Amino acid sequence: MFEKVMSLAKRRGLMWPSLEIYGGIAGFYDYGPMGCQLKVNIEDIWRRYYVIGEGFEQIQCPHVATEPVFQASGHLGAFSDLLVECTKCGEPFRADHLIKDKVEKSDGLPAAEIDALIEKHNVKCLVCGGKLSKAVPFNLMFQTSIGPGGKRIGFLRPETAQGMFVNFLTLYRFCREKLPFGIVQLGSVYRNEISPRQGMLRLREFNQAEAEIFVLPEEKTHRNLPAVLDDKLYLVPAHGEKGEYTIKDALKKGLIKSEIVAYYVALTARYLLEVGVHRDKLRFRQHEDDEMAHYASDCWDAEANTSFGWIELVGVADRTCYDLESHSKSSGQPLKAFIKFDEPKVEKVTKVVAKPSVLGPLFKKDAKAVKEALESMDASTLAKKGPLKVNAGGKDVTVPADGYDIVEKEEKVSGIWVTPHVIEPSYGIDRIIYALIEHAFFETKKEGEPYMVLRLRPIVAPIKVGVFPLMPKDGLSEMAWEINEAVKAHDVRTYFDEGGTVGKRYARMDEIGTPWCVTVDYESKTDGKATIRDRDSTEQVRVEIVKIPDTICELLGGKDFKELLKG
Amino acid sequence: MFEKVMSLAKRRGLMWPSLEIYGGIAGFYDYGPMGCQLKVNIEDIWRRYYVIGEGFEQIQCPHVATEPVFQASGHLGAFSDLLVECTKCGEPFRADHLIKDKVEKSDGLPAAEIDALIEKHNVKCLVCGGKLSKAVPFNLMFQTSIGPGGKRIGFLRPETAQGMFVNFLTLYRFCREKLPFGIVQLGSVYRNEISPRQGMLRLREFNQAEAEIFVLPEEKTHRNLPAVLDDKLYLVPAHGEKGEYTIKDALKKGLIKSEIVAYYVALTARYLLEVGVHRDKLRFRQHEDDEMAHYASDCWDAEANTSFGWIELVGVADRTCYDLESHSKSSGQPLKAFIKFDEPKVEKVTKVVAKPSVLGPLFKKDAKAVKEALESMDASTLAKKGPLKVNAGGKDVTVPADGYDIVEKEEKVSGIWVTPHVIEPSYGIDRIIYALIEHAFFETKKEGEPYMVLRLRPIVAPIKVGVFPLMPKDGLSEMAWEINEAVKAHDVRTYFDEGGTVGKRYARMDEIGTPWCVTVDYESKTDGKATIRDRDSTEQVRVEIVKIPDTICELLGGKDFKELLKG
Repeated sequence: MFEKVMSLAKRRGLMWPSLEIYGGIAGFYDYGPMGCQLKVNIEDIWRRYYVIGEGFEQIQCPHVATEPVFQASGHLGAFSDLLVECTKCGEPFRADHLIKDKVEKSDGLPAAEIDALIEKHNVKCLVCGGKLSKAVPFNLMFQTSIGPGGKRIGFLRPETAQGMFVNFLTLYRFCREKLPFGIVQLGSVYRNEISPRQGMLRLREFNQAEAEIFVLPEEKTHRNLPAVLDDKLYLVPAHGEKGEYTIKDALKKGLIKSEIVAYYVALTARYLLEVGVHRDKLRFRQHEDDEMAHYASDCWDAEANTSFGWIELVGVADRTCYDLESHSKSSGQPLKAFIKFDEPKVEKVTKVVAKPSVLGPLFKKDAKAVKEALESMDASTLAKKGPLKVNAGGKDVTVPADGYDIVEKEEKVSGIWVTPHVIEPSYGIDRIIYALIEHAFFETKKEGEPYMVLRLRPIVAPIKVGVFPLMPKDGLSEMAWEINEAVKAHDVRTYFDEGGTVGKRYARMDEIGTPWCVTVDYESKTDGKATIRDRDSTEQVRVEIVKIPDTICELLGGKDFKELLKG
Repeated sequence: MFEKVMSLAKRRGLMWPSLEIYGGIAGFYDYGPMGCQLKVNIEDIWRRYYVIGEGFEQIQCPHVATEPVFQASGHLGAFSDLLVECTKCGEPFRADHLIKDKVEKSDGLPAAEIDALIEKHNVKCLVCGGKLSKAVPFNLMFQTSIGPGGKRIGFLRPETAQGMFVNFLTLYRFCREKLPFGIVQLGSVYRNEISPRQGMLRLREFNQAEAEIFVLPEEKTHRNLPAVLDDKLYLVPAHGEKGEYTIKDALKKGLIKSEIVAYYVALTARYLLEVGVHRDKLRFRQHEDDEMAHYASDCWDAEANTSFGWIELVGVADRTCYDLESHSKSSGQPLKAFIKFDEPKVEKVTKVVAKPSVLGPLFKKDAKAVKEALESMDASTLAKKGPLKVNAGGKDVTVPADGYDIVEKEEKVSGIWVTPHVIEPSYGIDRIIYALIEHAFFETKKEGEPYMVLRLRPIVAPIKVGVFPLMPKDGLSEMAWEINEAVKAHDVRTYFDEGGTVGKRYARMDEIGTPWCVTVDYESKTDGKATIRDRDSTEQVRVEIVKIPDTICELLGGKDFKELLKG
């Protein structure tokens, strides 16, 4: 299946492995003209859901960022796979892949266990049969060096998310300091796979569309929840029966932990079905407790059934306050939102008050930063007075006990500072494209030869209408060209083709999933009509030429082709 | 000017330096919500010119590519700046920048001359006054390593162009093997600047929109040339008088070397004027003979006048056959187009015919590739028979004289294989954005305070209409909200705002360049009208609420606001 799909994809300008003239390079793909248009369509629909529908703001951050970002995000420490290399020929392998048929669950095993399994089952190099090395962690970020001298290390981003976290304060201010708000980013991300072998599914450079929704920890709901409560999804919960549930039931039974995650799971299903993932090949699987990322409190993967089995297309995760707190700690900048009370409260507060007379001589030019750091501390968490470690503008310093007082006083408090939680729907665009092409792929026979059709949903099809003259002569071309221009004037992408037999022209359009073709023939000159052919049923109907642009728009708007046949 | 523009840009969510919470990182910028929308608008208009207008196909290649690509493109050898470092504190400097006020033209000087100038003028480290090192070339590509082991070197692309060249054959086939055809790509590119100091103008990661147009070497014209012949541009030719010329005159006087370059220079001017570069701050400067890239035969830069002086926004270059020939040579794959004669010709041809009996034992498994390489040679260029160097599937081998024959025979030739030439309009999106923001920036006073307006052209403005109730009460919010939704239904981006005084709300919209604001007041409840305010004239007109969406669409379509005032 994969080979057939990719052969069609290359032949018809959808996508192909990169740098083929130089022998190729595993893990990189090019989008050709048709694939690029398909991708644009899929991303436009995504923006319709998240930018227009949800009212989120799109930003664009660089693909390169520096060490502190990934120190805070945890990628420097934890974003790695176990690597073994052949001691003889040097071929690298992803350790868990080598033993995946020896154990029930190979990913997540510690290095020592993998080493033991390799030894026990006498696993050798798949290339030369040589002895394999011990498993060692290999960080999956691409590393580079910024500027001369090699002193400033940079990494290609492994997700778009971090760009939205580090900009939290600026974005919070832009959104008029109100929660919830959502930010989205689309673009390439990078993952330096040890040995990618699954075509478009395991890429070293791929495309994400991510939303980060900043919410109050105790307000994990969504104002549009009622609209999705009756949506039915196939769920595979971590604890509980798998099967079809409504969102309402999934929440009632406690399978999905919060209303807001349930809402974005439902929205994701709607999106995936709209772009063309098949309903009976779509499920939502909850992460097991031991599978969940260190930062997440709940996570659901949208998975599609393909010839590679069930593959993850989207993850909807509750990342809690993990990211903002990490960046807050690393950068020394409090990344919090101010929640105003309806009216100010008078509260007894315990405060840390700095003593400049002590701090000045001690910290000199840093004294101001130390004072600020001290006074922003939550005094209620201090067990007793003693030397205090604080982070002053990125520097860790220790303040002696006589450098500050703890004071109790009554204060008018107008609100509190809270670290927002983050809900993240994260879409893998390339895998969505691959899954929907596989789901759309149909093979039949025509005159004994294999005949392929991509039954793409019209909304995502790169070309919406093929326009042909039966013959490129006798004025038919001019008539067809006029139809072509009239349809294009409605912002509908067409493909005008006057070369070869009409059968071959249909076949070409069928292979790139063009839903309809319009053909002008000799009869058109007398009856003023042309034929519209439907890709999936191959049925044809004659329509007045002047009505063709509107008819195409109606079909694109969802009208059933069968309605046309009724006249 | 720069500081003022960037301070507004940050405050209003247009753009700001990246990673500020981590102390920033020179040469990287984030696009915020408004900047990202502005960029989307500018790129959409670009696609309207090049994808819809010119009928070119868009593709998307990875940002990472391997060594052979940049070996062939010349970037590994020639894409560098001269670097000097302080021998005391290690600070790096771009050598030509250190001496630019000592000589008339500092860029392009050889290292030895720069060393001499630094010595002669006693130039020291700008940071610590230390002695400077000799100038050495520093390659401007970001380098990384693909997969484990560090054996496969990758680079971040310095331009999008190479992805289109290496895919020439696949794209040529997709375009039904006809010339001319055009391919476009938009996206991030990377340039590891030594010490970027000019904000958005000198970025280490920036955005390009490039078109590569593959043409026959002797057909450097364009079918739409007549439409631009009367366009007037300010030209700075390499040889000749600078001044205003029509395209027709520039061609007649031989200032622009080919009709196709002239056409894309004119198209570029139309594009830049449409997005908002000021006509009196736009010129086209031809590269001097010694300034031109090694591959180009003619090159014109569109330059905008800004507070940094004249800066390059776009380059329109005739890259000749350089790129395709280089990749052809490096990859061993002939990157040519077949040009069919109107009817086959009978020609006397000189051919290289391989002798398998000699090649077989000599080259073993490579014999087939050697035979193919031999027989694809142009025999007419061989002076006499002797040992021949050929590239067989990437390997250089020498074929002895008895390994082939040179044969003369008559042959029916149906066409010839030609290496197409490439015309490249290459747009720097970030610089276009910066220039048009500067050109749109106006500062006045309001009640003694500085008041800033971005007079963006409506077509690029991130928000087209602000919609306000005078007060957020008495039903005014509901009325304004209805207008907001009705305007949005026409795919027009609005901003609904009910917070603070109307004056402040106008100011916020003026600062992000929103061309019109609609305000609902108490009178609206009785007369059914609302006020539309024009950003640039600040004039106001009352319009029936039901007519507001259509009125906004008319204004976006180019109707003059003054027309509305006439009623």
